[in-house]
Amino acid sequence: MSSPWPAPWVAKAMCESKVYLATDEGEELVLEDVISIRPEGDGYLLVNLFGQQAHVRGRIKEIDLLKHRVIVEPAS
Amino acid sequence: MSSPWPAPWVAKAMCESKVYLATDEGEELVLEDVISIRPEGDGYLLVNLFGQQAHVRGRIKEIDLLKHRVIVEPAS
Repeated sequence: MSSPWPAPWVAKAMCESKVYLATDEGEELVLEDVISIRPEGDGYLLVNLFGQQAHVRGRIKEIDLLKHRVIVEPAS
Repeated sequence: MSSPWPAPWVAKAMCESKVYLATDEGEELVLEDVISIRPEGDGYLLVNLFGQQAHVRGRIKEIDLLKHRVIVEPAS
Protein backbone atom coordinates (compact mmCIF):
# COMPACT_ATOMS: atom_id res chain seq x y z
CA MET A 1 0.00 0.00 0.00
CA SER A 2 1.42 3.36 -0.92
CA SER A 3 1.95 6.11 1.62
CA PRO A 4 -0.81 8.70 1.95
CA TRP A 5 1.89 11.40 2.34
CA PRO A 6 3.54 13.32 -0.48
CA ALA A 7 6.97 12.09 -1.49
CA PRO A 8 9.64 13.67 0.74
CA TRP A 9 11.12 15.76 -2.05
CA VAL A 10 7.73 17.37 -2.56
CA ALA A 11 7.18 18.05 1.11
CA LYS A 12 10.70 19.38 1.59
CA ALA A 13 11.14 21.27 -1.67
CA MET A 14 13.19 24.38 -1.00
CA CYS A 15 12.45 27.07 -3.50
CA GLU A 16 14.50 30.02 -2.39
CA SER A 17 15.89 31.99 -5.30
CA LYS A 18 18.86 34.17 -6.00
CA VAL A 19 18.01 37.72 -6.94
CA TYR A 20 20.32 39.46 -9.40
CA LEU A 21 20.53 43.03 -10.64
CA ALA A 22 21.19 43.23 -14.37
CA THR A 23 23.99 45.68 -15.09
CA ASP A 24 26.01 46.60 -18.15
CA GLU A 25 28.75 44.33 -16.86
CA GLY A 26 26.46 41.35 -16.33
CA GLU A 27 24.44 40.17 -13.38
CA GLU A 28 25.26 41.24 -9.85
CA LEU A 29 23.99 39.02 -7.02
CA VAL A 30 21.88 41.06 -4.61
CA LEU A 31 20.69 38.38 -2.18
CA GLU A 32 20.44 34.60 -2.14
CA ASP A 33 17.98 32.22 -0.47
CA VAL A 34 15.24 34.77 -1.09
CA ILE A 35 11.75 33.67 -0.09
CA SER A 36 9.78 36.91 -0.30
CA ILE A 37 9.75 39.75 -2.80
CA ARG A 38 7.44 42.74 -2.40
CA PRO A 39 7.35 46.09 -4.15
CA GLU A 40 8.70 48.92 -2.01
CA GLY A 41 9.46 52.43 -3.18
CA ASP A 42 11.18 52.37 -6.54
CA GLY A 43 12.05 48.70 -6.34
CA TYR A 44 11.56 45.61 -4.24
CA LEU A 45 12.18 44.53 -0.70
CA LEU A 46 13.77 41.09 -0.56
CA VAL A 47 13.72 38.81 2.47
CA ASN A 48 15.63 35.56 2.67
CA LEU A 49 15.32 32.34 4.61
CA PHE A 50 17.57 33.71 7.36
CA GLY A 51 15.65 36.94 7.82
CA GLN A 52 18.19 39.02 5.94
CA GLN A 53 16.71 41.87 3.95
CA ALA A 54 17.84 43.86 0.97
CA HIS A 55 16.26 46.50 -1.23
CA VAL A 56 16.88 46.48 -4.95
CA ARG A 57 15.93 49.37 -7.24
CA GLY A 58 14.38 48.60 -10.58
CA ARG A 59 11.75 46.35 -12.03
CA ILE A 60 11.50 42.62 -12.53
CA LYS A 61 12.93 41.51 -15.85
CA GLU A 62 12.58 37.76 -15.44
CA ILE A 63 11.57 35.13 -12.93
CA ASP A 64 12.88 31.64 -13.67
CA LEU A 65 11.60 29.22 -11.06
CA LEU A 66 13.42 26.21 -12.50
CA LYS A 67 16.77 27.94 -12.22
CA HIS A 68 15.77 29.72 -8.98
CA ARG A 69 16.68 33.07 -10.45
CA VAL A 70 14.99 36.45 -10.33
CA ILE A 71 16.49 39.21 -12.46
CA VAL A 72 15.82 42.87 -11.68
CA GLU A 73 16.78 45.55 -14.19
CA PRO A 74 17.18 49.27 -13.58
CA ALA A 75 13.94 51.09 -14.42
CA SER A 76 14.22 52.95 -17.72
CA MET B 1 30.77 7.71 4.35
CA SER B 2 28.10 10.13 3.25
CA SER B 3 26.94 10.37 -0.33
CA PRO B 4 28.61 13.01 -2.51
CA TRP B 5 25.23 13.75 -4.12
CA PRO B 6 22.65 16.22 -2.91
CA ALA B 7 19.73 14.75 -1.02
CA PRO B 8 17.00 13.67 -3.47
CA TRP B 9 14.56 16.32 -2.31
CA VAL B 10 17.12 18.97 -3.19
CA ALA B 11 17.86 17.51 -6.60
CA LYS B 12 14.18 17.05 -7.40
CA ALA B 13 12.78 20.22 -5.83
CA MET B 14 9.88 21.44 -7.94
CA CYS B 15 9.35 25.12 -7.54
CA GLU B 16 6.51 25.93 -9.86
CA SER B 17 4.19 28.55 -8.44
CA LYS B 18 0.58 29.47 -8.76
CA VAL B 19 -0.05 32.95 -10.11
CA TYR B 20 -3.09 34.80 -8.81
CA LEU B 21 -4.72 38.05 -9.79
CA ALA B 22 -5.84 40.07 -6.78
CA THR B 23 -9.41 41.30 -7.26
CA ASP B 24 -11.97 42.97 -5.05
CA GLU B 25 -13.53 39.56 -4.47
CA GLY B 26 -10.27 37.89 -3.49
CA GLU B 27 -7.63 36.09 -5.49
CA GLU B 28 -8.34 34.58 -8.87
CA LEU B 29 -6.05 31.80 -10.07
CA VAL B 30 -4.54 32.70 -13.45
CA LEU B 31 -2.20 29.76 -14.05
CA GLU B 32 -0.59 27.04 -11.98
CA ASP B 33 2.74 25.22 -12.27
CA VAL B 34 4.28 28.46 -13.54
CA ILE B 35 8.02 28.32 -14.15
CA SER B 36 8.65 31.55 -16.03
CA ILE B 37 7.35 35.10 -15.58
CA ARG B 38 8.45 37.92 -17.89
CA PRO B 39 7.12 41.42 -18.36
CA GLU B 40 5.10 41.82 -21.55
CA GLY B 41 2.99 44.80 -22.49
CA ASP B 42 1.01 46.03 -19.51
CA GLY B 43 1.57 42.88 -17.49
CA TYR B 44 3.39 39.60 -17.52
CA LEU B 45 3.62 36.56 -19.74
CA LEU B 46 3.41 33.36 -17.71
CA VAL B 47 4.64 29.97 -18.90
CA ASN B 48 4.08 26.77 -17.00
CA LEU B 49 5.75 23.39 -16.81
CA PHE B 50 3.50 22.04 -19.54
CA GLY B 51 4.17 24.86 -21.98
CA GLN B 52 0.85 26.57 -21.33
CA GLN B 53 0.95 30.33 -21.48
CA ALA B 54 -1.17 33.09 -20.05
CA HIS B 55 -0.94 36.85 -19.95
CA VAL B 56 -1.92 38.71 -16.82
CA ARG B 57 -2.37 42.50 -16.70
CA GLY B 58 -1.05 44.37 -13.71
CA ARG B 59 2.03 44.48 -11.57
CA ILE B 60 3.55 42.11 -9.07
CA LYS B 61 2.25 42.63 -5.55
CA GLU B 62 3.97 39.75 -3.81
CA ILE B 63 6.15 36.74 -4.50
CA ASP B 64 6.11 34.10 -1.77
CA LEU B 65 8.46 31.30 -2.68
CA LEU B 66 7.70 29.23 0.41
CA LYS B 67 4.01 29.14 -0.40
CA HIS B 68 4.69 28.98 -4.16
CA ARG B 69 2.46 31.98 -4.76
CA VAL B 70 2.81 35.02 -6.96
CA ILE B 71 0.17 37.72 -6.62
CA VAL B 72 -0.43 40.23 -9.39
CA GLU B 73 -2.58 43.29 -8.76
CA PRO B 74 -4.23 45.56 -11.31
CA ALA B 75 -2.00 48.55 -12.05
CA SER B 76 -3.32 51.69 -10.38
